[in-house]
Amino acid sequence: MDVTIADIERAQARIQPYIHRTPLMTSQLINRSVGCELIFKTENLQKIGAFKARGACNALFSLNNATLERGVITHSSGNHGAALAWAAQLRQTACCVVMPCNAPEVKKDAVASYGAEIVFCEPSMASREANVAALIAARRSELVHPYDDDHIIAGQGTAALEILEQLDRPVDILMTPVGGGGLLSGSAIAVKDHKNRASTLVIGAEPEAADDAWRGFKTGIRVTESTPCTIADGLRGTLGERNFKIIMHRVDGIFLASETRIIEAMRLLWTRLKILVEPSAAVPLAAIMQQPEKFSGKRVAIVLSGGNLDLDALPW
Amino acid sequence: MDVTIADIERAQARIQPYIHRTPLMTSQLINRSVGCELIFKTENLQKIGAFKARGACNALFSLNNATLERGVITHSSGNHGAALAWAAQLRQTACCVVMPCNAPEVKKDAVASYGAEIVFCEPSMASREANVAALIAARRSELVHPYDDDHIIAGQGTAALEILEQLDRPVDILMTPVGGGGLLSGSAIAVKDHKNRASTLVIGAEPEAADDAWRGFKTGIRVTESTPCTIADGLRGTLGERNFKIIMHRVDGIFLASETRIIEAMRLLWTRLKILVEPSAAVPLAAIMQQPEKFSGKRVAIVLSGGNLDLDALPW
Repeated sequence: MDVTIADIERAQARIQPYIHRTPLMTSQLINRSVGCELIFKTENLQKIGAFKARGACNALFSLNNATLERGVITHSSGNHGAALAWAAQLRQTACCVVMPCNAPEVKKDAVASYGAEIVFCEPSMASREANVAALIAARRSELVHPYDDDHIIAGQGTAALEILEQLDRPVDILMTPVGGGGLLSGSAIAVKDHKNRASTLVIGAEPEAADDAWRGFKTGIRVTESTPCTIADGLRGTLGERNFKIIMHRVDGIFLASETRIIEAMRLLWTRLKILVEPSAAVPLAAIMQQPEKFSGKRVAIVLSGGNLDLDALPW
Repeated sequence: MDVTIADIERAQARIQPYIHRTPLMTSQLINRSVGCELIFKTENLQKIGAFKARGACNALFSLNNATLERGVITHSSGNHGAALAWAAQLRQTACCVVMPCNAPEVKKDAVASYGAEIVFCEPSMASREANVAALIAARRSELVHPYDDDHIIAGQGTAALEILEQLDRPVDILMTPVGGGGLLSGSAIAVKDHKNRASTLVIGAEPEAADDAWRGFKTGIRVTESTPCTIADGLRGTLGERNFKIIMHRVDGIFLASETRIIEAMRLLWTRLKILVEPSAAVPLAAIMQQPEKFSGKRVAIVLSGGNLDLDALPW
C-alpha cells in the first residue's frame, strides 16, 4: 500500500510537538546572481540539524509498545542515525546504528550524543545490510530503514507540506537533494497529490559524482550499485525501491551538479544567508547555478536538507 | 537631550518596513553546557548581516531632504559602514565610508557592494577622525557617527525592544557585546526604561584584550585611548561619550572574555545553532563560559550582533 498525502498529514500531526517549524529564508543577492526567485526551507535548523528528524520521529511514534521494547536499529552514514537516536531517546527505547567507518566524525559524535549504540562496518551497502541483518537475527530489534520505509517517506514529506502552508503564493518548482530518495519521494507526494498545487514541478538534484537517481530516472531501471565519491556525504546511497517507484510516477526531473558547483553554492549560502548548510543541502542551488537558463525567472522552493559538517574540514 | 524609550519606539516604527524581525533561537545542548537558559536574538540574520542596519536606517530616515542632498559620511571598520551604505542606497543618497586599511576584506567588499565610496586610512581612531573631518570640510556631507549619535543609539535599542516583545516571559539578564557602546546603551534604555522590565539586568561583554569599557565602568572615567588586539574586530573601538554616560547610569555590569573563550563560544554557536556568527557576536556567551557561576540557573537573552566574517580565515 503506497504512502498517500493523508499519511503525510497524519505524520505532520504526530510529529508536530517534537520538531521545529523551520523558517523560510530568501536572499535578493542570491536571486540576482542566479536569475530566479529562490525560497529556502531551512531544515538545517531542524532538530538534530536535518530534515531526517521528521521521518525518524514519525516512524518511532508509529511503533507499538511491544515493538519498542525490542529496540530499533538502522544503518546510516550520518543524519538518519542521529535522527533515529534522538527519536528513540524521546520514546525511551534502545537504538543501534550501523555506521560505515568512514562516516564524518561529527556525525558519529552526534549519534553517540543521543545515547545510541554504534556498530562500525565497511563503507559499502553490502556490509551495512549484512551487519544490520546479523544484529536483527540476534536481537529481534525493529529495522527503521533510512529511506525505503513508508513512515520515513511520510515523515520526510511533511517538510514540503509545511512549505506549501508557509508560502504566500505558489512556487513554480520545488527542489530537494536526492540520495536514497526519502525526501524527494515524500515531497513529490506532498506536492503532486495536494489539492491546490498539482501544477508545481518537483525536481531532484544530485551530484554528478553520485548520479544513480539521474541514470535510473532516465532509463526507468533502478541503479543499485554505485561507489560514489562526492563531498555530499548525505547523497552517497542509491535510491530505495519504494522511493524509485514514487519518483518515477511523480517527479518531473533530476538535475546534476558538479563538485565545484556544490562547494560554490554551499559557500554562497553560508555567506548570504549566514547559516551553515552541509554539502548535500547545497546541491539544488548548485544544480540551478549549473543550468541557470532552465530556471530563469522561475519561483523555486528549495529544501536545505541539513547543516551537520566538520568545521575542521571545510572545502575552501 | 538624552535618548528616551519613546525615541526607540519611534525608531522601531520608522525602520520596521526595511529590516527583519529576526527570530529568537535556543539550544538545549548549549544550555546544558553552561548551566543557564540562553535565548539568542539572531541579528546575524539581520539585513547586511548585523544589528547595525537598525541604527543606520533610523539615522538615514530621520534626515531631511536638504541634508540628504549633501550625502552622508562615516568611519567604520566594517558593519556600520555596510549598514550606512545600505541605508543610503534605500534613501538614494551618496555615502562615503572611511575604513582602516586593515579592516576585513569581506567587510570592505560589503561596503563596496552597496555602492558606497571607500576612503582608506591608518588603523587608528585619530586617522579615522582626521580623514572624516577633512572630507566633511570639503564636501559638507553629514556625519553619521557609528555609535556616538542619538539616532544610532535609538535604532540599536530596537533590537532589545523586539526581544521584550518576542519573549513569552521575562529574562533575568539581557547581554550584548560592547565596542563603541551603541548597542549596549540603546539596549539599556530599552530595558531599564520599559514599563514592565526594569528588574531585568543589562550586562555588556567585552574582550579582555579590548577592555576599555570594563576599565571605564570600574573607574567612572571614560577610556579614550586603546590599541586593542582582539579577534573580535567589531569591538576594537572605545566607548563614545553619549554611550558612556548612558552605560554608567543604566548598565549593571561589564564582563570580560579571553580570546580563547571567544573562539570556543563562536564554534559552539556555529555547531549547535547552525548559524554563522562573527567573533564579536560570540563575546557574551564567551563571558558566561568564563564565569558560569555568575549566571547559574539564570534566564539570559543575548544579542548575536552579526555574522560577517572571512570564511577563508576561520580561527580553528
